[in-house]
Amino acid sequence: MRDVWVIGIGQTPIGELWDKSLQDLAVEALGAACLDAGVEKPDALYVSNMLAGQLIGQKHLGAFIAQGMGWTGIEASAVEAACASGGVAFQAGVRAVASGLMDTVAVCGVEKMTDETSGRTVTAGLATAADADYEVDQGVTFVALNALMMKRYMHEYGVPHRVFGEFSVNAHANGAANPNAMFRQPISVDTYLNAPMIAPPINLFDSSPICDGAAAVILASREVAENLSQVVPVRVLADSTATDCLSLHARRNPIFLDAARASAFRAYEQAGIGPEEVDLFEVHDAFTIMSTLSLEASGFAEPGQGTALAAEGEIRIGGRLPICTMGGLKARGHPVGATGVYEIVDVVTQLRGQAGANQVPDATIGMAQNIGGTGATVVTHILALE
Amino acid sequence: MRDVWVIGIGQTPIGELWDKSLQDLAVEALGAACLDAGVEKPDALYVSNMLAGQLIGQKHLGAFIAQGMGWTGIEASAVEAACASGGVAFQAGVRAVASGLMDTVAVCGVEKMTDETSGRTVTAGLATAADADYEVDQGVTFVALNALMMKRYMHEYGVPHRVFGEFSVNAHANGAANPNAMFRQPISVDTYLNAPMIAPPINLFDSSPICDGAAAVILASREVAENLSQVVPVRVLADSTATDCLSLHARRNPIFLDAARASAFRAYEQAGIGPEEVDLFEVHDAFTIMSTLSLEASGFAEPGQGTALAAEGEIRIGGRLPICTMGGLKARGHPVGATGVYEIVDVVTQLRGQAGANQVPDATIGMAQNIGGTGATVVTHILALE
Repeated sequence: MRDVWVIGIGQTPIGELWDKSLQDLAVEALGAACLDAGVEKPDALYVSNMLAGQLIGQKHLGAFIAQGMGWTGIEASAVEAACASGGVAFQAGVRAVASGLMDTVAVCGVEKMTDETSGRTVTAGLATAADADYEVDQGVTFVALNALMMKRYMHEYGVPHRVFGEFSVNAHANGAANPNAMFRQPISVDTYLNAPMIAPPINLFDSSPICDGAAAVILASREVAENLSQVVPVRVLADSTATDCLSLHARRNPIFLDAARASAFRAYEQAGIGPEEVDLFEVHDAFTIMSTLSLEASGFAEPGQGTALAAEGEIRIGGRLPICTMGGLKARGHPVGATGVYEIVDVVTQLRGQAGANQVPDATIGMAQNIGGTGATVVTHILALE
Repeated sequence: MRDVWVIGIGQTPIGELWDKSLQDLAVEALGAACLDAGVEKPDALYVSNMLAGQLIGQKHLGAFIAQGMGWTGIEASAVEAACASGGVAFQAGVRAVASGLMDTVAVCGVEKMTDETSGRTVTAGLATAADADYEVDQGVTFVALNALMMKRYMHEYGVPHRVFGEFSVNAHANGAANPNAMFRQPISVDTYLNAPMIAPPINLFDSSPICDGAAAVILASREVAENLSQVVPVRVLADSTATDCLSLHARRNPIFLDAARASAFRAYEQAGIGPEEVDLFEVHDAFTIMSTLSLEASGFAEPGQGTALAAEGEIRIGGRLPICTMGGLKARGHPVGATGVYEIVDVVTQLRGQAGANQVPDATIGMAQNIGGTGATVVTHILALE
């Protein structure tokens, strides 16, 4: 296998972007990434998206986005693993370069959740990440599934709701200084405690927003990367995906993410490091309960201790394990099929030392974890400054 | 890059399978492929599907199908490139093994088109392969787009409709002896000529059917394959994808498949062969016009001469270039997201000498071409008896 480097990153600001189409967003992010990398036309394009077929009636996004870029002829396709789609697209890019088939590859995650022109609601769209027969047809929404996990966690470990607040407070504090974040206002613990309820115990500030956005990266082999002198080299150390049952009732333990455990520990093995060597961790904080479970499964806290890590201030920039350093899914935003690529962009931004007020000091190893459904697909990537 | 071998194949019969769910179909095909390969649990699973999100409200099919197989924990994800999804999933499998990351990989294409439980029709679903803004929103269906291409072709080359009939007659002749084919009755030229019109000039026998089915293959590295003594070794010689504009109006020439030309000729280069060395060709005959254009773009006939190749009997088993040897999309069936994997299964069946009454004599090199949309994504694979 060849070494794979990230040589370009690009993103759109996240928000309710009524004036931009899906293709507009993807082209904006890819254009920025190409400019950053000094690459005009890559050998291939991998697109991640979850909802365009259902919400706006457009599938076949590989060729569609390539057309938007004027990249007629190149290999292009799309991947899908619910909210873990972005991580899987990055993986497809890594494999294409690692195998020797491609020298430069573009990866683009794009999602437009605020359009519902094809008659399906975004709530129904998001529910397709769960088991249609055993969960969705029984009337449960995707938020409600996370609420079941959170309620069970609180019961099992005797943890009150308020201790999850630090995840939200941290995300908003970091989002405030990220010009691409959807929410740029810090919040207090009181704001969290007094937020409207969505699906008990999940309140508004436990939840990431519905939004639009696109992020892109350019990957290259070491040989190509070394010929592009302006590039700050960031190498992909590990690329690992693991799965679990879609439906909560079929899991070994509904409040432990077996797939995150498998994915993270395979990634540590590939990278030849342990969790203690990770300088920052882009967590999939779709809901505060997911942050907690991800930290525990990935070896950063014992089961039941994830919220304690947060309460001790260790997840802040300057703490032992900064997470959601650019605002995370909660404040930067969660355009579902794009999120995994945004996470990679955030890690690369940190490793390059380009995170401004949010810079994690001396960051050399960063990890991103992208979670699909309530934990059925987990993709972990570890990147390092070369 | 490591050599990649196909060591197992499996498929369900194709039809209107009301008594089987999407997961049932996938599990049946994967189970057969694993049994054929002598593999219990592969390292990874790649699923191809186009319509499950829209028609039955189930996405996240990588983890979902892995759960169905009891393969909890493995890497699994899904790809999408409209009707070319199957070819792209096979490609993901090839890359995973070629790169050295995986030793055995399962690929499964599955589609259930006869369920419309989520309120969207299959016609609307299929149209998402085309450009939503420039084509579908103007009222054109996917069949109508193919009809525009066929009409233009007939006008440009002065070809009458009846000459396309041989593609349909050949497909039905071959489907008759394939126990997995949806249509097993031979048809005459008269049947073709008197068929009801769908979208002029496309009639019922120019068109492939709406149906359900799943196909699967197991891939392995040479080292693993050589340790499984029962395997008849079939090697992947070439794996090539190219794209073109989704919308017909944006193409260089609406009746020449530039993406098929690029994909096929890159594949010949990878394989180190020319088109004259291909012993059989599984063509993407979603419509008879697509067979014609595919043969021309892939170097088997000059532009305007594709139907002549058929008329001369050269596409029959025993002819110069047998196509659709197990019935093709027309008679074997076209469960859209699964079709690319069925094509690979058909090629492997022929190369192994297991095609029964449909056996192409002395077949050692087979090609499969899977087309998405009206030609926006084209995936070509060449396989050879080792």
